[in-house]
Amino acid sequence: MPGPLDGVRVLELTAVVLGPWACQMLGDMGAEVIKVEAPYGDSNRKLGAHSATKNMPALYLTCNRNKRSIVLDLKKKSAVMAVLELAKTVDVFVHNNRPQAMDKLGLNYAALKQVNPRIIYCGTYGFAKAGPYGDKGAMDDSIQGASGLAMLNNAVLGEPRFLPTIVCDKTTAMAAVQGVLAALFHRERTGQGQELEVPMFETMVSWVMAEHLWGQTFDPAMGSAGYGRLLSKERKAYPTKDGFIAILPYLDAHWDLFCKLAERPDLLADPRFANLAARVAHIDDTYREIARTMPAKTTAEWLEIFGTTSIPTIRVNTPDELIDDPHLVATGFWKTIDHPTEGKLRSPAFPINFSETPAGIQRHQPRLGEHSVEILKEGGLDQATIDAMLAEGTTVQA
Amino acid sequence: MPGPLDGVRVLELTAVVLGPWACQMLGDMGAEVIKVEAPYGDSNRKLGAHSATKNMPALYLTCNRNKRSIVLDLKKKSAVMAVLELAKTVDVFVHNNRPQAMDKLGLNYAALKQVNPRIIYCGTYGFAKAGPYGDKGAMDDSIQGASGLAMLNNAVLGEPRFLPTIVCDKTTAMAAVQGVLAALFHRERTGQGQELEVPMFETMVSWVMAEHLWGQTFDPAMGSAGYGRLLSKERKAYPTKDGFIAILPYLDAHWDLFCKLAERPDLLADPRFANLAARVAHIDDTYREIARTMPAKTTAEWLEIFGTTSIPTIRVNTPDELIDDPHLVATGFWKTIDHPTEGKLRSPAFPINFSETPAGIQRHQPRLGEHSVEILKEGGLDQATIDAMLAEGTTVQA
Repeated sequence: MPGPLDGVRVLELTAVVLGPWACQMLGDMGAEVIKVEAPYGDSNRKLGAHSATKNMPALYLTCNRNKRSIVLDLKKKSAVMAVLELAKTVDVFVHNNRPQAMDKLGLNYAALKQVNPRIIYCGTYGFAKAGPYGDKGAMDDSIQGASGLAMLNNAVLGEPRFLPTIVCDKTTAMAAVQGVLAALFHRERTGQGQELEVPMFETMVSWVMAEHLWGQTFDPAMGSAGYGRLLSKERKAYPTKDGFIAILPYLDAHWDLFCKLAERPDLLADPRFANLAARVAHIDDTYREIARTMPAKTTAEWLEIFGTTSIPTIRVNTPDELIDDPHLVATGFWKTIDHPTEGKLRSPAFPINFSETPAGIQRHQPRLGEHSVEILKEGGLDQATIDAMLAEGTTVQA
Repeated sequence: MPGPLDGVRVLELTAVVLGPWACQMLGDMGAEVIKVEAPYGDSNRKLGAHSATKNMPALYLTCNRNKRSIVLDLKKKSAVMAVLELAKTVDVFVHNNRPQAMDKLGLNYAALKQVNPRIIYCGTYGFAKAGPYGDKGAMDDSIQGASGLAMLNNAVLGEPRFLPTIVCDKTTAMAAVQGVLAALFHRERTGQGQELEVPMFETMVSWVMAEHLWGQTFDPAMGSAGYGRLLSKERKAYPTKDGFIAILPYLDAHWDLFCKLAERPDLLADPRFANLAARVAHIDDTYREIARTMPAKTTAEWLEIFGTTSIPTIRVNTPDELIDDPHLVATGFWKTIDHPTEGKLRSPAFPINFSETPAGIQRHQPRLGEHSVEILKEGGLDQATIDAMLAEGTTVQA
């Protein structure tokens, strides 16, 4: 069974993680993704400590399955014309350049709409175009700083550290996919294409504030922003006798059961922990008492005790341990791509299970320009034009 | 202009953040969302230091705009029957109970499909049902532990701290929205409904590994998982003369410009920083040299110098400072909801700008059971039945 986006064609003009990962998700759901790259390639082709061959390091491989690659040197007019020809054949166009750059290239929404009125044009930017930061560049770290995440860490750690994952790139990638899917649904109902603007800053502020708006939810404010429980210095995985465990007896029923099974009847009688609101008000103490309890047994012993209850309890994994995690192994989460040039590659499954339109891996990660000529032909370019583009280096065939 | 999901009806049986925030996004995009709550309400109605009236604290308000609320006590048969009647009238059903609980209630996919073959049934779970963890409960913290996030923090901080935001709830919420939108698109093309399973653990492992799979991308592994740059102890916002700045001279062009404008020609000559790959290989040194440079000027002075370049450079904000951020103020990002009982409420805009189908705020956050009777009538229940449900406490009208 094909994925939900079977037959949808996507033209991707992106690099690094945000755009590539977004388009990979579209590809995972069955879309046909064409990745346009400059002759030097997606900058992530130069990154990553590990690779089997040139231009194919890990960081590129994890964000670019289910795609074909065409090289186009957009400094040349004929390359821009080729993008416009290809735009006629696709449903969705995704780019992550600044709006000014796209205007200058002649590849803004107006230009693409002219050749394909039904196109869905999705631009991911640092900031909404209309505002004073509209022409600013952005990367994950800078948006972590701008959106409050670094200062949330400052509240806990005493320094404005970035989170150890590119949360802004990946969250904005998911927002871009959301926008494209909603626009595809709208177009299916009405025939109407449109332009989407997906700004990292706004996406992350709305994301951060889903729980952290807090006292600022009210106008005038009843207090400051920042959800106290999450800023507790005591909020962490707990050491057991032999490792770490994550356990959150959160709801009232969880807490009662925890106190009973962990043999801490003293906590049950304590008014600081009498109900969810009380525990949240005394969150440091709550976490400290759980932490004090856990070193008494091994992780396996605690999992045995709490494993069949509804209290969220789980072994704490390093990223490496996930490769052999029994649940992920049993469900076939880790997929193998037999790559024609890179060998056997590991790839996580697309996480959503669709009963009727399963996502999947149809294509290996392309080498730089692996499909240049076939894609140009699909765009309707004749052989002479393609030969000229190859000769002048406007395109390169791997 | 209505949103892209105008006319789509969603029945929500969720609580806390994941499900409510997911359904709020569907509502932001124009869907009509019916939130089913137990007589005691979404547990987040009891949380949050701040509220104007009972059951309406901040954490509930930030995740429940654009909805109506109906109280149904699912312990009573007539409440389950009412859900099935309502299910006939909707396009999408979203729940966040464990699969076993939904089987027991008689509200699994088979039951809902029987009354509405076209329904899109989206269950968000801790873990995929098919695997050995399939019946485990989960909360954000436990999935941060399970999915590697806590141990990524351990690599940086020396303790397995959770990130100071409920990243697993919110990322899985976005995945659920993605699944629902893709399924709506598929249904629009084919008429076929389906069941979606959106597991937090799998969603987060695939999310974490988008950049952190690293050496484990290859099988056999070329090295361990974990993208070194993000695990650098030096990766943080930098103190300036008067505050903090986030600056990432990432690409080669950025770095050259940074060294010139920051008056650090010495760095340009240093082979450790010669190109992106070299800088990533010497990431601690790279970050340290930037950190050494920034205290020389104020944040405003640096923004003046770098503000017009393409180097991502931005003031570091606390969550509170975002309320007055000039860009967010200029773009009207902060929306005001004049709530009939809670006063003036602040709410972030939906971050995606759709040119033809703008998202927006159509409805205030409902009080518990604010719309019980009108929703039961929409479900086709007659007045006598509704009166009986009110009398026996199966439903409550606010």
